Amino acid sequence: MHAQVGQNAAMHPVLAIDVGGTKYAAGLVAPDGTVVSSRRVPTPQGADAETLWLALESLIDAVVDDAGGSTVDGVGVGASGPMEWPAGLLSPLNIPGWRAFPLLARIAAKLPGVPVRIHNDAICLALAEHWRGAGRGHDNMIGMVVSTGVGGGLILGGRAVDGATGNAGHIGHIVVVPDGQACGCGGRGCLEAETRGPRVTAWAVREGWQPPADTEANPSARDLAHSARAGDPIAIGAYERAGSLLGLGIASAVALTDVDLVVIGGGLSQAGPLLFGPLRASYRRHARIDFARSVSVVPAELNQDAGLVGAAALVARADRYWSRA
Amino acid sequence: MHAQVGQNAAMHPVLAIDVGGTKYAAGLVAPDGTVVSSRRVPTPQGADAETLWLALESLIDAVVDDAGGSTVDGVGVGASGPMEWPAGLLSPLNIPGWRAFPLLARIAAKLPGVPVRIHNDAICLALAEHWRGAGRGHDNMIGMVVSTGVGGGLILGGRAVDGATGNAGHIGHIVVVPDGQACGCGGRGCLEAETRGPRVTAWAVREGWQPPADTEANPSARDLAHSARAGDPIAIGAYERAGSLLGLGIASAVALTDVDLVVIGGGLSQAGPLLFGPLRASYRRHARIDFARSVSVVPAELNQDAGLVGAAALVARADRYWSRA
Repeated sequence: MHAQVGQNAAMHPVLAIDVGGTKYAAGLVAPDGTVVSSRRVPTPQGADAETLWLALESLIDAVVDDAGGSTVDGVGVGASGPMEWPAGLLSPLNIPGWRAFPLLARIAAKLPGVPVRIHNDAICLALAEHWRGAGRGHDNMIGMVVSTGVGGGLILGGRAVDGATGNAGHIGHIVVVPDGQACGCGGRGCLEAETRGPRVTAWAVREGWQPPADTEANPSARDLAHSARAGDPIAIGAYERAGSLLGLGIASAVALTDVDLVVIGGGLSQAGPLLFGPLRASYRRHARIDFARSVSVVPAELNQDAGLVGAAALVARADRYWSRA
Repeated sequence: MHAQVGQNAAMHPVLAIDVGGTKYAAGLVAPDGTVVSSRRVPTPQGADAETLWLALESLIDAVVDDAGGSTVDGVGVGASGPMEWPAGLLSPLNIPGWRAFPLLARIAAKLPGVPVRIHNDAICLALAEHWRGAGRGHDNMIGMVVSTGVGGGLILGGRAVDGATGNAGHIGHIVVVPDGQACGCGGRGCLEAETRGPRVTAWAVREGWQPPADTEANPSARDLAHSARAGDPIAIGAYERAGSLLGLGIASAVALTDVDLVVIGGGLSQAGPLLFGPLRASYRRHARIDFARSVSVVPAELNQDAGLVGAAALVARADRYWSRA
C-alpha cells in the first residue's frame, strides 16, 4: 500500500485506528463503511511514550500489509481524551505514558500525502451509529457510550458538532445529582460519576449485593446484569438507579438540543431492558416539553468495530463528519 | 414601500417584527443590524385571533408608512412559542387567542414577493447578541433570557442551531432540582421552574421578604433587586439561589455543547452582580472539566430592540442564522 490522495471522493478504503487504554485496533474501512479487515492488540500497560507508539506503529504496519499495496484515501483516528484538537496532541486519562503526545504528527509522518484526522472516541462512536448504525437518516441525534466512562457526540442539522475545542458531546458531565458523587472531572454528581459501570457495581456492593464468587474482587456490569436477570433485587435496583439518572440527564440534553433520537452503546447498555426500562420511564417523566416527548432512546446497533467505523467516517464522509479545512 | 426581493444580499432594510404576550414591536433594521425605526403597541389582552391579527397588521402598516416607499429584503419575525416551525403556526402560551394561528402565511399574503421567516423569540435574542451584541466573533455561544420564562438559543460552528423541530436552545428545561418545583412544561425542577422571575420573587416572599408597600400585591424582580441592594438578606438569598441554579444548569449546557461564551439577558439579569456573582461562583464549582473552565458568562449588551435585531438576522444574515431553503 502507498498512501495517496484519492482521485475521487471515497473511492478507496480509509485506514482507521482506535486508540484506547485497554486495546489498540486498526483496520481498513471501505467507502460504504464496511470494515474490510481489522486487527487489535492490547495497549502496553505502564509503558513510556515511545513504547506505546512502537506498539501502535507495528499494528499499523500489519494492517498496511493486509492491504497488499492498495491505496487509502486517508487515516481516521478515534482516541481516548482529553486531547488538543484538531492538532491531535494526546493526554488520555487512561494512557498515562502519553501526555501531549503528537500522535497525529507521528501518523502523518509515517503515511504522508493523505489527510490524517482525529476525534474523541465517544464522538467517533456517535458518528459510526449515525453513518451506519441506529442513527441512519436522523439529522439530529445524540450518540452516547455508557461504559467505564460516560461520553457522547452530537449530530445537529445532519452534521457532527465539534464545539469550540472539539469537546462537544460531553453528556457525561451534565449534573444529575447536585452535590452527588465526586467525578473524575473534579465536579460532583455528573452523569458519569453516577452511572459509569464501576460506580453502578460499587453502588450495588455497598447496598449488599453478593457478586458471583469468582468475580468478588472486581465484579463487572456483566456480573451485575447476570444477578439482576436471576432476580437479585439489589442488582435490579442498581440498574433502576442508573437508568433513572441516565433518563434525567438525557431529558436535559434533549431539551437543549432538540434531537429526535438518542443512541446508547457501551458495556452498561448491554444489560438491555434492565437498563432501558427504567431509563425510558425516567425520560418520559422528565422530558415533558412537547417536542421532547416523542424522542426515541435506543440501543446502539454496531458491534466492536464501531470505533473503526467512526474513525473512518472522519475521512470517508468528511462532508458530514469533519468540519475543518 | 413595496416589498421586493433585493437584487443584492442585505442591500435593503428588513422589516422586523417581535410578537410577545405583553407587547408587539415592529421596525426597520438596516443590513448592518442598526434599528432604523421602530414602534411598539400593547398586545390586545384576552382578544380573539382576528383582533390580535388586526392590531399587528396596523402596527406593520405604520412601520411601512415610516419607510416611505423604500424596499425591504424580507420580513423576520420573533415570537413567543410554542409554534410549528418553520411553517409559523403560532400557539403562544401567553397569547391564548392564537392557537395554530397561521401568522407567517398572513404576513406573507400582506407582503408578497419577499422571504418571511420566523423563529422563537428566545432564539432571536441569542441571534441578536451573536450578530450585534456580546457574542460578536464567537463561533460557539449560548444566548439566554431569564425573565418570566427561561429560554435560549444555540450558535455552534458559527451558525444558529435549529434542532429537529426548531426548538434547540430550550436551556430552561434542563433539570437542576430533581423532583423540584412543578414546571409549565409538565416536568419538575426545570431551570425555568426554579429561576424564572416570578418564582424567584415568590421564593423570597415565602421566606419572609417584605416587598415595598406599593408593590406588595405583585412584586417584581426589580423590587427584589432594590431590596437586595439595600441589604435585605432574604432578597440577597433569593438571587444567590437563582444564580446558583443558573450556574449549575449552564455548567451542564456547556459540557454538552462546548461553547466558549454564555450571554444572559432578560429582566432577572438586570440585577447585575447580585445575580452574576453567585451564578459565576456556582458555574466554577460545577464546570470542572478542563474545556469548560475558561468559559465566560456575561450580560447581554443589546437593549429593548434586541428582539427586532434578532428577527432581522433571519433575513439579513441568513447565511449564519437561517438554515432552511
